[in-house]
Amino acid sequence: MANCSAARVASYAVPYDAPERCTRAPTPTIRSGSVRARLAFDHLGPRPVHVAYEAQGPVDAPATVVLGGISAGRHLTPTTSDPSKGWWPGVVGEGDALDPARHLLIGIDFLGGKTEDGLLRPVTTHDQARAVAAALDELGVTAASFVGSSYGGMVALAFAELFPERTARLVILCAAHRTHPMATGIRSVQRAAASLGADTGQPARGLALARALAMTTYRSPEEFEERFSPRPLHPGRAPARFPVEEYLDARGADFAHRFDIERFLALSESIDLHHTRPGSLPPDTLLVSFDTDALVPPWLVDELATRSGRCPRHVTVTSLFGHDAFLKEVDQVASLLKASLPRTPEVVR
Amino acid sequence: MANCSAARVASYAVPYDAPERCTRAPTPTIRSGSVRARLAFDHLGPRPVHVAYEAQGPVDAPATVVLGGISAGRHLTPTTSDPSKGWWPGVVGEGDALDPARHLLIGIDFLGGKTEDGLLRPVTTHDQARAVAAALDELGVTAASFVGSSYGGMVALAFAELFPERTARLVILCAAHRTHPMATGIRSVQRAAASLGADTGQPARGLALARALAMTTYRSPEEFEERFSPRPLHPGRAPARFPVEEYLDARGADFAHRFDIERFLALSESIDLHHTRPGSLPPDTLLVSFDTDALVPPWLVDELATRSGRCPRHVTVTSLFGHDAFLKEVDQVASLLKASLPRTPEVVR
Repeated sequence: MANCSAARVASYAVPYDAPERCTRAPTPTIRSGSVRARLAFDHLGPRPVHVAYEAQGPVDAPATVVLGGISAGRHLTPTTSDPSKGWWPGVVGEGDALDPARHLLIGIDFLGGKTEDGLLRPVTTHDQARAVAAALDELGVTAASFVGSSYGGMVALAFAELFPERTARLVILCAAHRTHPMATGIRSVQRAAASLGADTGQPARGLALARALAMTTYRSPEEFEERFSPRPLHPGRAPARFPVEEYLDARGADFAHRFDIERFLALSESIDLHHTRPGSLPPDTLLVSFDTDALVPPWLVDELATRSGRCPRHVTVTSLFGHDAFLKEVDQVASLLKASLPRTPEVVR
Repeated sequence: MANCSAARVASYAVPYDAPERCTRAPTPTIRSGSVRARLAFDHLGPRPVHVAYEAQGPVDAPATVVLGGISAGRHLTPTTSDPSKGWWPGVVGEGDALDPARHLLIGIDFLGGKTEDGLLRPVTTHDQARAVAAALDELGVTAASFVGSSYGGMVALAFAELFPERTARLVILCAAHRTHPMATGIRSVQRAAASLGADTGQPARGLALARALAMTTYRSPEEFEERFSPRPLHPGRAPARFPVEEYLDARGADFAHRFDIERFLALSESIDLHHTRPGSLPPDTLLVSFDTDALVPPWLVDELATRSGRCPRHVTVTSLFGHDAFLKEVDQVASLLKASLPRTPEVVR
């Protein structure tokens, strides 16, 4: 089991080939790159792969790995080399709960799909955890806290199972030790839709359809009820179009534009292959669920808490936003994170 | 408003061209056929169409129109000319709650899709109600009670709105005065899946995919949780296959085998176009919802009850089976129907 109080101060050693090493004290150190590592994949066997990572923060701040959903990646906050916003605005950023001035924030790109290292599939959450470990090795971090949401929460749980001695505090949002068969059923339909598109020369259309369906599981019926009229847009016209349909189509098209189908298939499948032993949960864990999350319902997170035998803290937050609440309930998530994670007490400038 | 006590005894006159007329008293009269009628479609204008119907029961028994989901049709019970079972076994049949010895049971085939009368789309629940009225005219039935489930419940509500004087008692299961935007969103994805298949020369695959997705909305997460293991069937193999996926695929393939894609598109769209004025609900109505029905949740049925201003009886039944509970909870549905519908007190033989 990890010694949480000891692990709170994570070590940070600058490795020999740091390309973007910056030693100015006031500005958080930013390092991004790709580490070549030979990982022992669960099903693919030992394979050399590239793990892309981005780290930002003072070398002596608590190391905190931040992992999100399947479409999230290593880029957590705007940096000088990549000024685009991160995937978790309002939660990660200067002055936010996850502050690059007070944490050494670490993100990675998940493995999966067609890569320069060949087709990676099936890939498991434990494989992703091994990739995180390789990034931590590269950064010289021996142990870290984790904030994992959705798929990233599963990866964090897998990391804690594989590397208990490297795991400090865990904050898991919208994730559990296993998936729900209804969620697996709906994701299997998503994969079938993407595959139908791919097999018939319409990969973007298939992928958009898969994402449109996924969106119905990310949000709640309550939100859609407030948001969309049930009336058709152009009464009398066939095929009929509905406001909710326009929204889902737009979200699907946007996703198809920026995501790769092989990667989607590998990561969607990886969710359904996820399984960790509840007993591997570190004692110092905060579990966060949302009352309207149908993909990872509070009772499933309770099952993890109960079966772990560790009495972790489990907070269920009321939200209109279903599974996406971890992205939408910024204030509530931020205050939970601030209260739960080790951080540098004040910024030294 | 319908005078319910007067309407309980429905008249039944044998029309001039009844091909299967049977005058033996003990055996319920069976009549099936197709009536040619000119219907005033909401969006297609006036059009001559064929309405296929099947009626079974004593001429002097209370006329009861029985309407089910989009895949249900006119055939309610085994007959000499069609010994196949009906779509609602356990509820409709000899000795059952809807007994052809004690009711004049009437079913129709819904209009929609590619027909001998051309492409019927968009078709509304009010159009279907006009088709029911044409069948009742053909059978010489001036007024009838209705048992409508799912799509058939919407059609029954539309009938009551258009023809209050011909509506006796209504029993509506799993249906309301409008649809829910989340349900519309998921059905729009189903239609897009079917269309992707049709557009790429894979109509059966598209339709199977649409139906697989529909099945996830017909059943409840609770049932799937009890029924399916979350573990993959062949660990390590890609693409992974899951027990719930096999089930959904099988149900989808079965549907694609027996259903037409144009008909599916028209009827699915018709659900989403459904809208009736709550105030048109007859006072003598029983509304039945199921606690796990996510497509037509109890609160939506409550909305109909409240807005109708008629104080109809609304019973919410506890079930594991979601929207499909009207098909699965045979005993509870049967006892509700027995207590609510006019029927011949005893069989005269």
